[in-house]
Amino acid sequence: MAVGTGLLPPLIPVAGVRVATESAGIKYAGRPDLVLFELAVESSVAATFTRNAFCAAPVSIAREHWLGSGGARYWLINTGNANAGTGMAGLADANRCCSQLAELAGIDPGLVMPFSTGVIGEPLPVDRIVAALPLLLTGLAADGWPAAAEGILTTDTRRKGCSRAVHCEGHHFVVTGIAKGAGMIRPNMATMLAFLATDAVVEPDVLQAILSDSVEQSFNRITVDGDTSTNDACVLVATGAAQNPAITASEGALYEALREAVADISLKLAQDLIRDGEGAGKFVEVSVSEGSNESECLQVAYTVAESPLVKTALFASDPNWGRILAAIGRAGVDRLDVNQVTLHIGDTLIAERGMRATDYLEAHGLAAIEGEEIRIRIGLGRGDAVASVWTTDLGHDYVRINAEYRT
Amino acid sequence: MAVGTGLLPPLIPVAGVRVATESAGIKYAGRPDLVLFELAVESSVAATFTRNAFCAAPVSIAREHWLGSGGARYWLINTGNANAGTGMAGLADANRCCSQLAELAGIDPGLVMPFSTGVIGEPLPVDRIVAALPLLLTGLAADGWPAAAEGILTTDTRRKGCSRAVHCEGHHFVVTGIAKGAGMIRPNMATMLAFLATDAVVEPDVLQAILSDSVEQSFNRITVDGDTSTNDACVLVATGAAQNPAITASEGALYEALREAVADISLKLAQDLIRDGEGAGKFVEVSVSEGSNESECLQVAYTVAESPLVKTALFASDPNWGRILAAIGRAGVDRLDVNQVTLHIGDTLIAERGMRATDYLEAHGLAAIEGEEIRIRIGLGRGDAVASVWTTDLGHDYVRINAEYRT
Repeated sequence: MAVGTGLLPPLIPVAGVRVATESAGIKYAGRPDLVLFELAVESSVAATFTRNAFCAAPVSIAREHWLGSGGARYWLINTGNANAGTGMAGLADANRCCSQLAELAGIDPGLVMPFSTGVIGEPLPVDRIVAALPLLLTGLAADGWPAAAEGILTTDTRRKGCSRAVHCEGHHFVVTGIAKGAGMIRPNMATMLAFLATDAVVEPDVLQAILSDSVEQSFNRITVDGDTSTNDACVLVATGAAQNPAITASEGALYEALREAVADISLKLAQDLIRDGEGAGKFVEVSVSEGSNESECLQVAYTVAESPLVKTALFASDPNWGRILAAIGRAGVDRLDVNQVTLHIGDTLIAERGMRATDYLEAHGLAAIEGEEIRIRIGLGRGDAVASVWTTDLGHDYVRINAEYRT
Repeated sequence: MAVGTGLLPPLIPVAGVRVATESAGIKYAGRPDLVLFELAVESSVAATFTRNAFCAAPVSIAREHWLGSGGARYWLINTGNANAGTGMAGLADANRCCSQLAELAGIDPGLVMPFSTGVIGEPLPVDRIVAALPLLLTGLAADGWPAAAEGILTTDTRRKGCSRAVHCEGHHFVVTGIAKGAGMIRPNMATMLAFLATDAVVEPDVLQAILSDSVEQSFNRITVDGDTSTNDACVLVATGAAQNPAITASEGALYEALREAVADISLKLAQDLIRDGEGAGKFVEVSVSEGSNESECLQVAYTVAESPLVKTALFASDPNWGRILAAIGRAGVDRLDVNQVTLHIGDTLIAERGMRATDYLEAHGLAAIEGEEIRIRIGLGRGDAVASVWTTDLGHDYVRINAEYRT
């Protein structure tokens, strides 16, 4: 089950990036489970990683290589095995994948960033990965993005990708991204991997700031079940092939155009992860406004978005506003005046002054909540800050998928 | 579904307390839904209430009356309607129940503490409650506890109650308690109501300290779904009928005996709430040790106990330790050294040094997790602090019950 149609839009190739996908038989035979990105020499690379203390071996290695080299030539991604909870052996396995690829490609192993996703705690089948590397390298192609969008999936039911062609002050560049992730989704970050690329010319520190800001407002604003993965990563390469005047500061039209495109694609991909959330039957936006600061808005938004009682009510298309008020009330906002709080579902005012709105009828609530896309709007009545998060309902499919995942 | 047999043990009457139960037709016809406790004149009364900002009208009134009078003569409890999210009208309704009862009993309305539990946001059917008050008053009896244990239930599948007869230094007293609550259970406090009574002679401030400590280690250590109710309350009366030398300080054998009995009953009732948790198929203890302080132990324990991914794995009897490690890793413990973390299920060492334990076999984990009662033990390897919380699994019954509750 998933929300919406989820068709993959056309993905525009990015000059300086080639992509290949293979089936290495990591967990299942015949399923694409290995993806390779080749990045042009001199590319800038920005990255963000999971903050989970139990971060997986590939996360440690990818971060180390990226910090050490200040860039990367290859992103190597496998599904079917997270190489997480695997201790020192896991680190050695991730390193071996990098060094084998580096040898075949004739580069330094420090220029390979590995990414893994799948089951936790099983040894990585390195031999199968290594055996598939020659085919991967020969398969590299500029138009390999759609196949890669398939190759990085795990419990996802569909591909997620997005492109923008940017025209600005006579210059042209492209931003393209793909992502995976369907459960264990919560900042920071989701069980998600996202790979973005642009051919714009951008200084590394500006690129990093653009990525960090975009991730904060997109992938770090979605939650399926409050669980944060050990393996999350989001990376963005700028190859420079577009030969625009270099974007060297966080200002100017070119900078704004790139920032907007990356933010836009990140938000689209993040929301697509939610639409394909494990067992998702609803796509739910929780918007909190009139807060004293963004932090308390997020606190309320997450408490509502992660309340199992709210989520089961959403699953049942039940406008159970009492559960939403109860979640707001326990979110820990200091000296919250409940008489100032307003609650809308869609455009329907449901509750105000601590109770059901005078004109509200159950029929209005039922109408507001019946669609696949639901917007819960909460006003705290104490300031100007706003924040939104996106989540799903909680139904039988979530339980079925997560109870059966390993067996 | 529920864990264990859950038979109600014999409940010992408490001298100075009489109890009555009636069916007022508040939500369903013919179901006991109204309970009255009559407390002896000069009783000491201790109380703890929900910290939810959207606290229900009866919570506001009960707190106000209790603080104002420094005691109470009646506890009036209805199920079927929480009188929460009802604004000013809800306060007026709760007040009217109190004043009508006070008039019939010939006392001040400030000596009545009202309690409500049930659906949120519907007007309280005051007339039905008022109509049943005369019958309630004539039905008061010392042995009314088992019927009251039934009368306070909502989605609970069984009664919860417990008694202790205490013999200490030639003195004798009794402690008896009943509780309800099956979902929306999380500190502070759960959707729970608990009514405890003793005939011991105790100073009010000592009684309050005993209750607060006991609640902190019992009702505030259980979680079904992370949701905290708008209506929770736990009250403890000491009638003084046992005529022991007054307990006036937090020391001495009589004090210790009473404290232990109240703590014991509170823990038993709290654990019974979990065993009867909505859709519960497992009773799960999450014990965290070797923390720097109790707060970080609780942080880890709650993160694990409330992780939907951990809970669905428990439902599936799947020793999916990767999900437990991932939950520990995202609990926000500052500078956690994952190489020091150990994980046991029951007596089986599952993971250490950031990975699966060397001798661990899947068969061991399956054996450790197959029973109805599961103990997850986490060592943080950074201190001496400990904390435990209790929870349930998350399965289809939870979704079914919570998706269907209002319809």
